[in-house]
Amino acid sequence: MTASAPGRAGTAAPRLADLPLRPELAGEEPYGAPQLDVPVCLNVNENPYPPGEQVVADAAAAVAAAMRGLNRYPERDALALRADLAGYLGHGLTADHVWAANGSNEVMLHVLQAFGGPGRSVLSFAPTYSMYPEYARDTHTRFVTHPRRDDFTLDVDGCLAAIADQRPDVVLVASPNNPTGTAVGLDVVTAICRAAPGVVVVDEAYHEFARPGTPSALELLPEFGRLAVSRTMSKAFAFAGGRLGYLAAAPAFVDALRIVRLPYHLSAVTQAVARVALAHAREMLAQVAALRAARDDLAGWLRGRGHEVADSDANFVLFGRFADRHAVWQGLLDRGVLIRETGPDGWLRVSAGTPAEMEAFKTALTEVLDASAGGTTDHDQEQSR
Amino acid sequence: MTASAPGRAGTAAPRLADLPLRPELAGEEPYGAPQLDVPVCLNVNENPYPPGEQVVADAAAAVAAAMRGLNRYPERDALALRADLAGYLGHGLTADHVWAANGSNEVMLHVLQAFGGPGRSVLSFAPTYSMYPEYARDTHTRFVTHPRRDDFTLDVDGCLAAIADQRPDVVLVASPNNPTGTAVGLDVVTAICRAAPGVVVVDEAYHEFARPGTPSALELLPEFGRLAVSRTMSKAFAFAGGRLGYLAAAPAFVDALRIVRLPYHLSAVTQAVARVALAHAREMLAQVAALRAARDDLAGWLRGRGHEVADSDANFVLFGRFADRHAVWQGLLDRGVLIRETGPDGWLRVSAGTPAEMEAFKTALTEVLDASAGGTTDHDQEQSR
Repeated sequence: MTASAPGRAGTAAPRLADLPLRPELAGEEPYGAPQLDVPVCLNVNENPYPPGEQVVADAAAAVAAAMRGLNRYPERDALALRADLAGYLGHGLTADHVWAANGSNEVMLHVLQAFGGPGRSVLSFAPTYSMYPEYARDTHTRFVTHPRRDDFTLDVDGCLAAIADQRPDVVLVASPNNPTGTAVGLDVVTAICRAAPGVVVVDEAYHEFARPGTPSALELLPEFGRLAVSRTMSKAFAFAGGRLGYLAAAPAFVDALRIVRLPYHLSAVTQAVARVALAHAREMLAQVAALRAARDDLAGWLRGRGHEVADSDANFVLFGRFADRHAVWQGLLDRGVLIRETGPDGWLRVSAGTPAEMEAFKTALTEVLDASAGGTTDHDQEQSR
Repeated sequence: MTASAPGRAGTAAPRLADLPLRPELAGEEPYGAPQLDVPVCLNVNENPYPPGEQVVADAAAAVAAAMRGLNRYPERDALALRADLAGYLGHGLTADHVWAANGSNEVMLHVLQAFGGPGRSVLSFAPTYSMYPEYARDTHTRFVTHPRRDDFTLDVDGCLAAIADQRPDVVLVASPNNPTGTAVGLDVVTAICRAAPGVVVVDEAYHEFARPGTPSALELLPEFGRLAVSRTMSKAFAFAGGRLGYLAAAPAFVDALRIVRLPYHLSAVTQAVARVALAHAREMLAQVAALRAARDDLAGWLRGRGHEVADSDANFVLFGRFADRHAVWQGLLDRGVLIRETGPDGWLRVSAGTPAEMEAFKTALTEVLDASAGGTTDHDQEQSR
């Protein structure tokens, strides 16, 4: 017993501080971007195009069928869904190579429960996805980072030195990286896999948005048995509300995750609806090319306005830099446009949206910066990239 | 780095033993009862009655509506669902008092992530639910048990002595208990809450099956701010495939769980379907009385056959004892009846089912025991209770 709480199970209306919460959680806030009811949401890198009516009808029918057996537990290994995911990925993968869970959040939790934990460490390359330290915290894994270059690319020699120095049990590489959009070449991933003493996870949540021809780390799976490649249906697949993340790796890697998963973690409804979406993969992904074009247009427009913009292979753009980024974020929000205040100081992240959403963003940003007479933009700090 | 793996991310087709799995997980098997395709499944305490066609139709419609926005992330706090759950529970509870997750498995994980963890302990009363040590293992919480009496009831003085001795951060009391079916009186829960230095969770997964008038520990929430009462929609609610567990506690207790939950852990589809089921609560629960009667009939029949039977307030019966329980389990399975080989040595657990399922079980058990000429039943060991 580590808390100094009174010797009975509390009083009627305790405050959080009265409860014996783990000390490292004290003062922590639940993770998440603000969920605000505004006209233009460009803050969490969703695909702005909803599923079409055929997908809706097929999902409703699949759920009706699942409902008729919903008094029974779901198929615990979700093998049919995992086979469908393997088919979508290609590369000769089968269900045995694929793991799935309620969002890639839960996939990553399983990875760190199996390969991280107390006395172990996970290395990533900052700035990177802000959930990574949460996964580490939730599994008591030590989180260490090595910095990216100023242009957010990875310096291979520095990465290898960090691996040699830290001997991390898990290396986590996002490609394309969030919030910067930076893709990592397979030569770099290969060098990391050769050097890493533990497992390596390449987080390809945004892979479908990468420039055509960008290779996936899936190509390296036959060579590296301790490599895993994680994906999600939340982004390109327009399935964020369905919560389905997945990972491809050697079957033994998947077996390790099966040990730590909670039984029946994927509901019969989730399995059914995700399979419908996968059966309509072409339709679900139909807007990816348009979103890539919107991203490139957005980056060009921002550069044209004199902003610094990180090269992006994802469906968002990191731009800046602002002496008071919060004021810019708030100014946009006041105009009904929600973007994300994340990444290194001075930067903001905006998702690629529909043409109307992009116009609304451009109009609002122009107004915000004109209103502040340029005073909040650090033009002097800008570098060419 | 704790593993003795070679200095690169593995070879093409590693075995599990080649991967740097946490040492305490080595040799562990994924948890779960066998999922076998047999005519009569009485092994995981499901409600055998599927949802009716009106529920099916309403769920399909709700999912169709959710699908049209499935490209967006779900409402992260699931407030509407939590309000519905609070309304179902009554006792003046509101959404702020309720937490929900993908099965009570995940609810318990959140509890131990917030209040357990390395250097902390959880106490329960054995024999009890076989997932409890898994929750502890997955959160690095030390799992300690105090034994129940021979009739599986709790000895209050012994429980209080164990609490004083162990000073557990979390006390976990199942009522009705799985796999024994034993309900715990509120006087015992009250004594435990008064003595416990940390939090207390009463797991009421099977509460709806308790004899009418059996009080719920929900009644004690106003008195004990560090008490939580967990429930599930998997059992009485006939919603095992939907994966929805929940918990009621003081709002600050819920706030603690919100810190450790993964964002967007409940999909928009799960929220929608669970809300439909709750809107049809009376229909979903319509067979509970029949299942109680089936349980009582089953217990009486088993006693009449000379078996030892634990008193049950759940939708299953623990019976025995058998010198070779596995042989009895296998004999039933050979006859198309799947029950559960769990609980103390010599006992078996069977769920209450439909009249046809109960007949199939009785016929199969009679055949199995007649075939073995009574040689596997330890009639000599039986005690009256």
